[in-house]
Amino acid sequence: MKIKKRRKPNKASNLPPGTISYKGKKFSDVTTVEIINYSVDSYTKLDSKNVEDAFNFKETNQVTWINVNGLNATKNIEKLGLHYHLHPLTLEDVVDTTHRPKIDEFEDYLFIVFKMLYFKDDGVLNYEQVSMVVGESYVLTFQEADGDVFDELRERISNAKGRIRSQGSDYLMYAILDAVVDNYMSVIEDFGDRIEDLETDVFASESNGSTPSQIQGLKREILKIRRSIFPFREIINRLEKSECKIIDIKTRSYLRDLYDHTIQVSETIDLYREMIWSIMDMYMTLISNKMNEVMKVLTIIATIFIPLTFIAGVYGMNFNNMPELHYKYGYYVVWAVMIVLFILMLIYFRRKRWL
Amino acid sequence: MKIKKRRKPNKASNLPPGTISYKGKKFSDVTTVEIINYSVDSYTKLDSKNVEDAFNFKETNQVTWINVNGLNATKNIEKLGLHYHLHPLTLEDVVDTTHRPKIDEFEDYLFIVFKMLYFKDDGVLNYEQVSMVVGESYVLTFQEADGDVFDELRERISNAKGRIRSQGSDYLMYAILDAVVDNYMSVIEDFGDRIEDLETDVFASESNGSTPSQIQGLKREILKIRRSIFPFREIINRLEKSECKIIDIKTRSYLRDLYDHTIQVSETIDLYREMIWSIMDMYMTLISNKMNEVMKVLTIIATIFIPLTFIAGVYGMNFNNMPELHYKYGYYVVWAVMIVLFILMLIYFRRKRWL
Amino acid sequence: MKIKKRRKPNKASNLPPGTISYKGKKFSDVTTVEIINYSVDSYTKLDSKNVEDAFNFKETNQVTWINVNGLNATKNIEKLGLHYHLHPLTLEDVVDTTHRPKIDEFEDYLFIVFKMLYFKDDGVLNYEQVSMVVGESYVLTFQEADGDVFDELRERISNAKGRIRSQGSDYLMYAILDAVVDNYMSVIEDFGDRIEDLETDVFASESNGSTPSQIQGLKREILKIRRSIFPFREIINRLEKSECKIIDIKTRSYLRDLYDHTIQVSETIDLYREMIWSIMDMYMTLISNKMNEVMKVLTIIATIFIPLTFIAGVYGMNFNNMPELHYKYGYYVVWAVMIVLFILMLIYFRRKRWL
Amino acid sequence: MKIKKRRKPNKASNLPPGTISYKGKKFSDVTTVEIINYSVDSYTKLDSKNVEDAFNFKETNQVTWINVNGLNATKNIEKLGLHYHLHPLTLEDVVDTTHRPKIDEFEDYLFIVFKMLYFKDDGVLNYEQVSMVVGESYVLTFQEADGDVFDELRERISNAKGRIRSQGSDYLMYAILDAVVDNYMSVIEDFGDRIEDLETDVFASESNGSTPSQIQGLKREILKIRRSIFPFREIINRLEKSECKIIDIKTRSYLRDLYDHTIQVSETIDLYREMIWSIMDMYMTLISNKMNEVMKVLTIIATIFIPLTFIAGVYGMNFNNMPELHYKYGYYVVWAVMIVLFILMLIYFRRKRWL
Amino acid sequence: MKIKKRRKPNKASNLPPGTISYKGKKFSDVTTVEIINYSVDSYTKLDSKNVEDAFNFKETNQVTWINVNGLNATKNIEKLGLHYHLHPLTLEDVVDTTHRPKIDEFEDYLFIVFKMLYFKDDGVLNYEQVSMVVGESYVLTFQEADGDVFDELRERISNAKGRIRSQGSDYLMYAILDAVVDNYMSVIEDFGDRIEDLETDVFASESNGSTPSQIQGLKREILKIRRSIFPFREIINRLEKSECKIIDIKTRSYLRDLYDHTIQVSETIDLYREMIWSIMDMYMTLISNKMNEVMKVLTIIATIFIPLTFIAGVYGMNFNNMPELHYKYGYYVVWAVMIVLFILMLIYFRRKRWL
Repeated sequence: MKIKKRRKPNKASNLPPGTISYKGKKFSDVTTVEIINYSVDSYTKLDSKNVEDAFNFKETNQVTWINVNGLNATKNIEKLGLHYHLHPLTLEDVVDTTHRPKIDEFEDYLFIVFKMLYFKDDGVLNYEQVSMVVGESYVLTFQEADGDVFDELRERISNAKGRIRSQGSDYLMYAILDAVVDNYMSVIEDFGDRIEDLETDVFASESNGSTPSQIQGLKREILKIRRSIFPFREIINRLEKSECKIIDIKTRSYLRDLYDHTIQVSETIDLYREMIWSIMDMYMTLISNKMNEVMKVLTIIATIFIPLTFIAGVYGMNFNNMPELHYKYGYYVVWAVMIVLFILMLIYFRRKRWL
Repeated sequence: MKIKKRRKPNKASNLPPGTISYKGKKFSDVTTVEIINYSVDSYTKLDSKNVEDAFNFKETNQVTWINVNGLNATKNIEKLGLHYHLHPLTLEDVVDTTHRPKIDEFEDYLFIVFKMLYFKDDGVLNYEQVSMVVGESYVLTFQEADGDVFDELRERISNAKGRIRSQGSDYLMYAILDAVVDNYMSVIEDFGDRIEDLETDVFASESNGSTPSQIQGLKREILKIRRSIFPFREIINRLEKSECKIIDIKTRSYLRDLYDHTIQVSETIDLYREMIWSIMDMYMTLISNKMNEVMKVLTIIATIFIPLTFIAGVYGMNFNNMPELHYKYGYYVVWAVMIVLFILMLIYFRRKRWL
Repeated sequence: MKIKKRRKPNKASNLPPGTISYKGKKFSDVTTVEIINYSVDSYTKLDSKNVEDAFNFKETNQVTWINVNGLNATKNIEKLGLHYHLHPLTLEDVVDTTHRPKIDEFEDYLFIVFKMLYFKDDGVLNYEQVSMVVGESYVLTFQEADGDVFDELRERISNAKGRIRSQGSDYLMYAILDAVVDNYMSVIEDFGDRIEDLETDVFASESNGSTPSQIQGLKREILKIRRSIFPFREIINRLEKSECKIIDIKTRSYLRDLYDHTIQVSETIDLYREMIWSIMDMYMTLISNKMNEVMKVLTIIATIFIPLTFIAGVYGMNFNNMPELHYKYGYYVVWAVMIVLFILMLIYFRRKRWL
Repeated sequence: MKIKKRRKPNKASNLPPGTISYKGKKFSDVTTVEIINYSVDSYTKLDSKNVEDAFNFKETNQVTWINVNGLNATKNIEKLGLHYHLHPLTLEDVVDTTHRPKIDEFEDYLFIVFKMLYFKDDGVLNYEQVSMVVGESYVLTFQEADGDVFDELRERISNAKGRIRSQGSDYLMYAILDAVVDNYMSVIEDFGDRIEDLETDVFASESNGSTPSQIQGLKREILKIRRSIFPFREIINRLEKSECKIIDIKTRSYLRDLYDHTIQVSETIDLYREMIWSIMDMYMTLISNKMNEVMKVLTIIATIFIPLTFIAGVYGMNFNNMPELHYKYGYYVVWAVMIVLFILMLIYFRRKRWL
Repeated sequence: MKIKKRRKPNKASNLPPGTISYKGKKFSDVTTVEIINYSVDSYTKLDSKNVEDAFNFKETNQVTWINVNGLNATKNIEKLGLHYHLHPLTLEDVVDTTHRPKIDEFEDYLFIVFKMLYFKDDGVLNYEQVSMVVGESYVLTFQEADGDVFDELRERISNAKGRIRSQGSDYLMYAILDAVVDNYMSVIEDFGDRIEDLETDVFASESNGSTPSQIQGLKREILKIRRSIFPFREIINRLEKSECKIIDIKTRSYLRDLYDHTIQVSETIDLYREMIWSIMDMYMTLISNKMNEVMKVLTIIATIFIPLTFIAGVYGMNFNNMPELHYKYGYYVVWAVMIVLFILMLIYFRRKRWL
């Protein structure tokens, strides 16, 4: 067997299933672990490089949120796996950042993989995989790099705003997923702005040679966004219907509400998709319209002057015996004929609505 | 994380879930509350700014319809929520006017969100969200601004027309939804008129440069209408099948009838959608046809006169030794040749069906 | 609220639900009632203007078919409703001729609404709504105007042909629906002929300026037909699966057979739909092909003669010092050059397969 | 009611349901009946014109296959119906050759209608309906004309090849359906060859004016094939899942295998369908490409020579006072200018990648 | 019956069902059998030409993997079938290499058919069918030729890497399927590279005449890949849900994980499919854009010089009485007029944004 060319050799795919090996591109030098432990009346936050610091909190009756930034330090992840009795496939999926969003229900915990979207400084949309393990009294989140969309949530926990401090780990899971959907909303909205800008440009006839590639770029981007967000809807739906004991009956109302939001996100994506296709059609139509106009100008000029030039050509011939040439008013008669012809042509074009 | 540009900062999305904060654009200065209380033989109507006036009616065995206009006075809404024991998420959804139409079944009440469509004075289609809470003996409706499609219904209640006065809150809910579907019908019909006008214009070749943008406008509008109305169908379907105790068995026949109407609305929307796409195709075809005609005119003129001009050019050359120039009838022979050529060309074009 | 323009004010939509008011356009001056009463060995036919004449037949053990022509005499319809205990919504739907085909099962009777299609004298396809109420021993049909597709069925009943006289009201219902499907078949077949005629025209290049509007017309018509016939399939399906006691087990085989026919009708409609779209594509291709041919003729003529005309132009210049003009064979050399150029061009076009 | 025009009056559609009347076009003069009776160790074959000859075999414990060729002798069919207790609708469907493929389960027998496809001598694809009745110990097949795809199967029975002789009527049914699917396979394969030939032609730019009509022809044919074969898949699926006592548990494995084959046939049809659409697109692209090339040639020639001709025209003017004409090297300078212009144009076109 | 032309006579299709006859094109001269037998602490590997060598291992409590390379030696396959009690249809399907991927559950074993994809040296994508029989303690695989994607798996078994040695035949089945999905992944990735290369070419305007045929080639290839891989998804889904006793509960987690991977593969295929269609659109747009540009150049040149040439033509006429010719500055005035005209034209084109 021979593969013709392989630009990105995906060596990991040849490892035995269940091997923990980070496949992503983001090798943060330091893997940091952020531990938040809270209950209605207590709150502790700890930034550490040692994941074992989190294990002290386990026995208590509180909720522990352990957030791991950076996936190349697989040792930390293995320790967590051991401590929380995670399935080998879960650990493998945590470090495989090419994974499709999904939910797996295990006996003791839920495992959720999803994508976090954000625009980089250069306006390029970036996709970062986040994995989440939700247990009875803990939530583990794994991110490829520092920086996320959960800052506002952290603040709410620390300030005891809203009802989060009085709820269990399932509500924390909901709050994290809610932050992710809000993140999707704002990315999609921004994307919608770009589409509208492009549409305005196309209609203002300010489209230039780069318009098709811009449209193509948006097409590809929306396909990629769709692919990252659509499975998320299925995840929330399965969460809402799951009979897993971790999820309290009261949290289900919130999940149903969240599900409505994800449907709204999906529908907006499909709407934008149709709009991009539509802009493409519009662009093609406008090109056709322009070409039509160009052709009309050419046809009008050519149709008027080619016959006139012919007449001039005729009386430019050098035959000895051309009686018209010697008529006194021959020249003026020819002018008159040409002007009449010119006017007839104009009337014809006016009738055809070309002018 | 950095979002490149955000024209409409959606600040509310960072609030903890369950916060009541109006996100819409319509800040009516005054929030008015309209209370209608009726039974078979009694009828009271009260316009007030104080929502507490409605609470007196609660104990009675009658139906109370409380309509709140204006959502920025969240205090009134919170009072209603408290009085009727509404879930925090319900109150949050009432003031979030970007919500997708939906139905939520709670233990004591049904919560329905839908859109009301109407044309503004400038012909622009406007979308207003209405929320409705239906309890055992009361219906609450929340609107963003004054003015709605329920005036005829109010009159029917006050005049005791139809069977409404003898029915419970579930029939009032049905009557409200029925008025909304009638509203959809008439908006869609009006939209259909626009499409037909455009189609007529395109075929009358009276299309001009603005036609593509008109078509594009209709495309976008129909996509938006579709998105507002399609979930409504699902709402009615779930209402009809709901086993909620609020809905009487007799009301179900009416809901089934209403469901048939919503299907009809949806199908009409899809029909119009196909028609718009079809008009676009037609427009492209007509442009191609026109360009074809323009090209034919150009080709006929050029094909006839370019060879003739060449002949004239030949005898305009100044060679000393050009015997034809000195023939007595040379000039006339050339004319004859040119006329024969002209006629041959005409025959050729006639054969090609270009003339 | 303001509706921009309303060509067909749909006033009835503001009436309370359940009001009986005819919304159609066909006000027959006389509403006639046709009563057919039969059993295996008896047959009575009565044409009357008074619907009460039918009520005498009710007690007997026979099948009574009451056919009402003309819906503006709502009094007759109300009397029937009272006599047969019909639900108010049924009566409302009978006179609402804009209704989508549907089936409603009530306790004592089935209510079916469908469309009858026929071509008017001017070749325009016409849609007429027929409502049918099927009870234990009676069938009521309501039509907007005289004339229908049931004449052959009436004859079969009067002549006792087939098994109809020995069967109950459910078989009569089946026979009526069967006649309707046959009607659909023949309309669709006729429509297929039109499509094939158009296709033949397009390929014979006899298409003219009106072809796009013809295609568009067929597109719209097929969409309308589809909308009228597709719900009918669902009606038959539900009838076959209905557990309603009115439909005998033996009649179900016939309904299953009828269902196969309606599927065939639906599939034929979809086939024709695809064919119309396909003709449109073909038409566009042929226009492109023609334009290509036109362009080739123009290009060949222009490419040959423009350079030759240039040469003639050069030797038409009036410079004093142009030695070629004084060569003895200059003129002939120029002709030779031009002929050689002409031949080279022809070879070039032949190579390009343009000739 | 008036039908505008009816080329193929479908008179039979006005007959009462259940009437046996052949609607097809193939009136074979002789209706032949072929009777094959076999068990593990016996085999009888009989060609007869009298269907009653088959009834002698009925009592035995063997499998009887009665094949009727020609459907206009409805008497034979009625006799069979009487003898085997077939439902009137079954007999009606046997002679209605416009029927959609389907399966009906009756108490004592299965009734299957399907299409047999074959190419006629002129390469036109032909569709022939075959009906099959499968009972406990007999199989009846009805064909419109002589000649079918079962010869190899007959040979296998007579030679006792394979396991057919040791199996019941359900295995014979399977063997017949298997032969039909093999027939579909080979027809589809042949169709695939045509598509590939056409694709090769289009790419070899050997497409000519008839290409669009060829593509259109293939489009229509594939739609028709699809319509004939797709319901067959459903038939096999229902057979496999049927709880009918005629089908032995052992035969189900074979039916499942057959079902896999029919899915393969359906998928191949859909693949070919997409390929035809794709060829159409390709053809359009190639036309556009050619037109582009034609336009380039025209533009290059016109753009080079029109300015040069203008220069020649200027010095062909007859003004008295044109000093350039009297310069000694004026003529040569003009030539130089024209050549430089010519070269500049060539460079420009080279830059634009038009040459 | 007559088939017009048959390039690939598929004789096997006329054989009785259940006949074992190889239909593929790859007749390896030698059929080799590779036997791997392992348990946690034992490992034997045997390459043989005699399939009976494998039967010694059967009694042991270990897992036996028998891999047969080359399908034309049907005798070996029949011996295996006899030894392992395989159904005749299974053996038939093993040698029918045109089969659609599928899974069949028999009482004692699972039978799975799938495709292995790889690029040949000339970059052509090749499809090879692999059949797999999974029993209680054995796995049989059948390949058309030497060389496969299981080398890494064999190594893992021999080196006792991962958990494979401690698991049963169901885990071996999973490991084989996992290797196949990894193979799909890498083929699809390579295919994605080709698409991106083509897209880059199209945008770099380096597309040439061969671009449409390249796009068409990719279209056809993706349709073929889709057809080979999509049924595989269904296979894994059915495996995961199968209640077959061969598959251990612990293996199901792995199969679920595998299912997620196959969904990812399918979605990537659909993404690439949309991208190819999109590139086609883009290519058409760019052609239109180019043609537009060509037309503009032609129109600008013709529109400027045709009127000027006309003027020159007028003063090239030879009338006796043309007063302008005798004006002292007539020639200069004409030049001035022509230059002004030229400038006006340029301004006009600038306004139209053509320059």
